[in-house]
Amino acid sequence: MLELISEHACFGGSQRFYRHQSSAIGLPMRFSVFLPAQAASGKLPALFYLAGLTCNEETFMTKGGAQRVAARDGMILVAPDTSPRGAGIAGEAQDWDFGVGAGFYVDATEAPWQRHYRMYSYILELRALLVAQLPLDERRVGICGHSMGGHGALVLALRNPDLFRSVSAFAPIAAPSRCPWGTKAFSGYLGADESAWRAYDASALMAQASAPFPKGILIDQGLADKFLDDQLYPEAFEAACRHAGQGLELRRHPGYDHGYYFVATFIEDHLKFHSANLT
Amino acid sequence: MLELISEHACFGGSQRFYRHQSSAIGLPMRFSVFLPAQAASGKLPALFYLAGLTCNEETFMTKGGAQRVAARDGMILVAPDTSPRGAGIAGEAQDWDFGVGAGFYVDATEAPWQRHYRMYSYILELRALLVAQLPLDERRVGICGHSMGGHGALVLALRNPDLFRSVSAFAPIAAPSRCPWGTKAFSGYLGADESAWRAYDASALMAQASAPFPKGILIDQGLADKFLDDQLYPEAFEAACRHAGQGLELRRHPGYDHGYYFVATFIEDHLKFHSANLT
Repeated sequence: MLELISEHACFGGSQRFYRHQSSAIGLPMRFSVFLPAQAASGKLPALFYLAGLTCNEETFMTKGGAQRVAARDGMILVAPDTSPRGAGIAGEAQDWDFGVGAGFYVDATEAPWQRHYRMYSYILELRALLVAQLPLDERRVGICGHSMGGHGALVLALRNPDLFRSVSAFAPIAAPSRCPWGTKAFSGYLGADESAWRAYDASALMAQASAPFPKGILIDQGLADKFLDDQLYPEAFEAACRHAGQGLELRRHPGYDHGYYFVATFIEDHLKFHSANLT
Repeated sequence: MLELISEHACFGGSQRFYRHQSSAIGLPMRFSVFLPAQAASGKLPALFYLAGLTCNEETFMTKGGAQRVAARDGMILVAPDTSPRGAGIAGEAQDWDFGVGAGFYVDATEAPWQRHYRMYSYILELRALLVAQLPLDERRVGICGHSMGGHGALVLALRNPDLFRSVSAFAPIAAPSRCPWGTKAFSGYLGADESAWRAYDASALMAQASAPFPKGILIDQGLADKFLDDQLYPEAFEAACRHAGQGLELRRHPGYDHGYYFVATFIEDHLKFHSANLT
């Protein structure tokens, strides 16, 4: 059951914040939805947006500037939170890159995380819930994300191309098995056995795929992004796409950094990309 | 002297955050500027945006979605902070509607506020500073604001129509002398003598003016704004404009509330309004 926490008129549509009891997480979770005016008269394509480290369900809706485009083009936007909240694990909010605000869109298998930190299953649960309860056209759902959320979007789409038929990312953690953020998160949530990490590594998954997205994948990357060299590895994902025969438009933008001024600048291109793919 | 704190590429231009020592305030102050790419090749019109209670120099730049339009139309955006910070007055951060984050764009005359809380003079100082140091065309500067900042924009423009040649507001505190926010702020900053309040009351100022803005004034007001009945009084400003023969487009929007989803929805109209007025 969805509990509507707040609702704001926005570009002729409705910006909503919801809470619900998640079965995947075993705790209440929050998410946000933008419903354009067109949602009153039928089902619409939808875009899930997964946010990055330290963010929550508000970040994209307040900073992304996407509602203007979604209102114009008739697209529903969905932004989940980035981790469980209130799991009660000692020290879970101590690090900004692990635990609270840093669920990494994986189903943890290691104690004490395995009970609640199940963000991979949560995104699938949320998709099913919203398709049932809001006017999302279930055959026209895409996914996008930023940084940790870009990693999540690529992984969710690669493992569920029937559920997410279009995928794009901003500055994704594209090969988490080999960067400090990813190895810290995967060690903690999934354990020391690196073979378990492959199911959550977009570059590893793509290397074994056979071009699951015939209309291509869009990735934007700023070249002044201070995390580019150590954490993101878009070139690894690019190589995996080439190997798999998967079309990829990887746009490298001089001067742009890792933040939301970068995301806001190019978000319209992503919504247009998904709109075109989903029609 | 301006100290550049950070800079972010944004819609082909530059989103900057600065710090400087303000002579009006007697303390360091922060502000933000968006310079579109066109600023590299000549002076441009500029829009000052004054934010509301609890906000700071970041709020508009992260939530307003204005840079896209400013980049397209070649307009500089300037967003000051909403009060001095670190004045060291006991209890100055205790209330959200008075003191820190709530300078009300007045020059305080009452102790202990009179030394630093001089936001009216500060906005004029900042305008002069930026005209001298950045490519603002000094004959083409407009001003806009939201809530407390809408009050500030109207007052600054009405008292300085030669400096701010175009003015608009979102949900302004349009008659502060008669609402709880305004009477609390004016009593504290300006004292009990209400005759001193008139210099900072847009409706009172307009009642004595003679149509200083020949191209009109634009105000947007949401009708689901929970502060509308008690705090804002747009109808008082509307009556004063009618009395003064001042053209006013006061748009009342059913369903919209007081927040930035409302501001973001209509910000493009405001930038277009100022662009047209300033050319």
